[in-house]
Amino acid sequence: MTATAATKQAATKTAAVTNPADKYTPFPPVKLTDRQWPSRVLDKAPIWCSVDLRDGNQALIEPMGPDRKRAMFDLLLRMGFQEIEVGFPAASQTDFDFCREIIDGGKIPDGVTIQVLTQAREELIRRTFEGIKGSKRAIVHLYNSTSELQRRVVFGMDRQGIIDIAVAGTKLIKQLADETPDTEIVLQYSPESFTGTELDFAVEICEAVMEIWQPTPERKIILNLPSTVEMSMPNVHADQIEWFCKTMKNRESAIISLHPHNDRGTGVAAAELGLLAGADRVEGTLFGNGERTGNVDVVTLALNMFTQGVDPGLSVNDIAEIVRVSEYCTQLPVHPRHPYAGELVFTAFSGSHQDAINKGLKALSKSNSGKWEVPYLPIDPQDLGRSYEAVIRINSQSGKGGIAYVLEKDYGLQIPRKLQIEFSKIVQRVADETGKELSPTDIYETFKAEYLDAESPLALIEHATEARGPNSGARVVNAVVTRDGKTQTIKGSGKGPIDAFVDALRQGCGVDLHVLDYREHAIGEGEDAQACSYFEVKTSDGRTLFGVGMDADIVTASLRALVSAANRAAR
Amino acid sequence: MTATAATKQAATKTAAVTNPADKYTPFPPVKLTDRQWPSRVLDKAPIWCSVDLRDGNQALIEPMGPDRKRAMFDLLLRMGFQEIEVGFPAASQTDFDFCREIIDGGKIPDGVTIQVLTQAREELIRRTFEGIKGSKRAIVHLYNSTSELQRRVVFGMDRQGIIDIAVAGTKLIKQLADETPDTEIVLQYSPESFTGTELDFAVEICEAVMEIWQPTPERKIILNLPSTVEMSMPNVHADQIEWFCKTMKNRESAIISLHPHNDRGTGVAAAELGLLAGADRVEGTLFGNGERTGNVDVVTLALNMFTQGVDPGLSVNDIAEIVRVSEYCTQLPVHPRHPYAGELVFTAFSGSHQDAINKGLKALSKSNSGKWEVPYLPIDPQDLGRSYEAVIRINSQSGKGGIAYVLEKDYGLQIPRKLQIEFSKIVQRVADETGKELSPTDIYETFKAEYLDAESPLALIEHATEARGPNSGARVVNAVVTRDGKTQTIKGSGKGPIDAFVDALRQGCGVDLHVLDYREHAIGEGEDAQACSYFEVKTSDGRTLFGVGMDADIVTASLRALVSAANRAAR
Repeated sequence: MTATAATKQAATKTAAVTNPADKYTPFPPVKLTDRQWPSRVLDKAPIWCSVDLRDGNQALIEPMGPDRKRAMFDLLLRMGFQEIEVGFPAASQTDFDFCREIIDGGKIPDGVTIQVLTQAREELIRRTFEGIKGSKRAIVHLYNSTSELQRRVVFGMDRQGIIDIAVAGTKLIKQLADETPDTEIVLQYSPESFTGTELDFAVEICEAVMEIWQPTPERKIILNLPSTVEMSMPNVHADQIEWFCKTMKNRESAIISLHPHNDRGTGVAAAELGLLAGADRVEGTLFGNGERTGNVDVVTLALNMFTQGVDPGLSVNDIAEIVRVSEYCTQLPVHPRHPYAGELVFTAFSGSHQDAINKGLKALSKSNSGKWEVPYLPIDPQDLGRSYEAVIRINSQSGKGGIAYVLEKDYGLQIPRKLQIEFSKIVQRVADETGKELSPTDIYETFKAEYLDAESPLALIEHATEARGPNSGARVVNAVVTRDGKTQTIKGSGKGPIDAFVDALRQGCGVDLHVLDYREHAIGEGEDAQACSYFEVKTSDGRTLFGVGMDADIVTASLRALVSAANRAAR
Repeated sequence: MTATAATKQAATKTAAVTNPADKYTPFPPVKLTDRQWPSRVLDKAPIWCSVDLRDGNQALIEPMGPDRKRAMFDLLLRMGFQEIEVGFPAASQTDFDFCREIIDGGKIPDGVTIQVLTQAREELIRRTFEGIKGSKRAIVHLYNSTSELQRRVVFGMDRQGIIDIAVAGTKLIKQLADETPDTEIVLQYSPESFTGTELDFAVEICEAVMEIWQPTPERKIILNLPSTVEMSMPNVHADQIEWFCKTMKNRESAIISLHPHNDRGTGVAAAELGLLAGADRVEGTLFGNGERTGNVDVVTLALNMFTQGVDPGLSVNDIAEIVRVSEYCTQLPVHPRHPYAGELVFTAFSGSHQDAINKGLKALSKSNSGKWEVPYLPIDPQDLGRSYEAVIRINSQSGKGGIAYVLEKDYGLQIPRKLQIEFSKIVQRVADETGKELSPTDIYETFKAEYLDAESPLALIEHATEARGPNSGARVVNAVVTRDGKTQTIKGSGKGPIDAFVDALRQGCGVDLHVLDYREHAIGEGEDAQACSYFEVKTSDGRTLFGVGMDADIVTASLRALVSAANRAAR
């Protein structure tokens, strides 16, 4: 049975359910006495471990290739991560090759430890050790799923069977570690699906692993307690962590690690409260990439500490660069409202907010306290390499999205992103000069004047194209233009009309343009719809700019766009 | 001094700060004795109030116009919101007009109460009452900022001055409410910037307002305690709410309302823990739109309750429709990893996750418990009108983004979104037939075979266009085509070559196509770059499909795309 068929069948069974109480079971409270975490304060950074290259990577529509992996690894190093899970080398050749590349290429700085994931199967563990051979220090991350549900429906095993898997894996890792004296092997064990595991069993299996590994306070084991699926409110997660820390034996020989996911939208809170509850370490990803709703976002966690006066121990100050590399590597966007990093988070639209911010900034500039305190700005944008922008609706640079929306919605123009940036500066200049809010009509008129009406010194009157000869694959354009009011005929040839017209402009008018990109689209429906054509060109003196043309004829629209670019270049 | 100049000046002052402890002040803990909230369980839904049309709307790059407001209002009604903040009518003519439209047009169903925001100034309060005149019941939401920072740097007032503002506003609202006997007026008071306000002062000002309003358990006041800026961890927010609820007089005559923002990425947690701490009501928005990082996301909050067996009292089950309307109204995307709603949250990429889910679904279909329990799926996707999709990397429908990435990255093709959807079905069919993962080359070859090589029964050999006469504004196309191998010349006219070629196809070949949309772009740089042209057409029997053509000549590329569409239609 396929997954979809099974879903349908399951759904048929439960179709009559309308009250969620009949179908969904509330998460049971933790029997925790003398709860401590709510009274604690977070006053130091945890050990950070990035899982961008593993948990983040495996959840991508297109997993990272070698270039993207390197770009991500370099960024993580620049940010100061000292523990980086670089992959699952036994399961993926790309991951294995990447391990070899960074080890053999000497790309792991001193003080940085790589981490590799493995299941407990012998061949996988052996292959994992081949992957990390030659590294100075590596964390071997062993996991098996321990939740009641997975034991029952996935593995069909009792508790002892699941413990045996973990113990056998640990024994083999211990043996291979002894055989690899040049690499310091740190064991990390994850009872996967910890949040769905009975707490007493989680402690039992971790203690069984520790019994084999024999960690000490000087040579700690990492016990990673994954919220593989976020199943409860974050206070319950904290209760689980506090219960675990209080109950386990030999607490001082273990680093307790959190690995929150974000299924309920509370991954950041789960990590923060879990740290209050006694955890020492957090695994997460940049901006929360990862399976389904993602892993916990370590950038937000670090900046939350920063704004409370706590040194997060990670460089998160060049946020634009972190966003850029992260978007390149994951091919997923950072949302405009993402904490600290989104495009819109330092933008105040409301007049009263703008007023309060301005007053706060003025007061701050007179203050000698050195303390940041500005209404509506929980962090100084400059600490993230950003600036605060007041937006008078759609007339500033931040409003380029708004400009694009207006032109598309009201006028059907789908202007390319680079042109949006070019044009938004023109809009901003107009807005600054007039000091008023620009209406959609104002914006369109500004666009028209700047691009569509750029018809001097050069204007296109008429053109004809013809094949240069049968099967020559070449076109000749004859065009009539006016130049400073005087009519002339120009002629050029090329593979198509654009190529030929660029040639004609060069030969006939001495205008030298190199086409970098163009796009064209219909406005409205129908084969006789207007076409709008956008050309990005490079001028002979090295400037890059756009020209735009419109016509019912796609060729005429394109030639007009080239003329528009030529005229704008001449201004 | 402009805001930016002030930021720069402030930054110069603090430029030497490297340790955040010197610049940022930790949020002070709340002195709360006998803390109750961590031991409580959330077992019933709060009163919900949507602020999409106010707090959400004011933070948009392009605020909603009347059409989008109506679409949002209708969606909120369908979802079952009984309290909807519809605007700030005294500050915005659009908001005022919208109030009048829904009241005069009888568009507010029985049982639904509109809410309007106002500052405490007399003329604004009077205008607000004009806005709500004729409604059966309305919440007048009075606010002024009470935080220590705003009192000091924005208003330059002491506590009593701030209390006087709130009290004067309340008196006027009471008077106008008495003069408007046909409308039941509910007072909501917000000590704005509550999270930056000393708790004793927050209680003092709320009690001063209550002293005037004289609420009773039957006619409660709403006290809204906004986390205008999220400034602390969510457990501290809960402590604030519990302290407030325990300290204030006449608790039984007030509804305590939360209004969390998401500056620290913990807005959902702040709302959930605030409800445990004693609050009765939550103000928020769909998917967390709102100022900066947004308001709390009520869809996630509701679904978090749903998955714990608690009826949320909101219809959140047609998630695709909620996403669609919300994206239309806000012109902001819902992130692919957004809890419950994102494109990727029911997609399992990892083989072991897919295996566990499949086993879980099979076990569920045999179970009689009626309880949902499937590994890695905290909610039945069908309860959201969705389905679970296993993705073998880039070969299923969920992978259309992946397909688009591959074609763009490796082949420079920027295929339009609707074509992505059309083509992903073809890829999925190929993947299902072959049962293997498709490489980028496989995908490109599939695309080429389906679109670019669609050259029979019709193929384009040559074409020429000419003006029909001087200044006629019309073009004639003469084209040589083969049809089932036989060569023929066809001729047509129109405003441009596309129009003329569509005419020629109709006259010469009996092929009747109507162009719905097209776009074209350069592949690579240079005036002689290849052009790729995409046409969406409607056939004479009403089908909609795409054709794609490539050539160095933009006209040839377009005519080829039309031929591709004609041939695909004939299959």
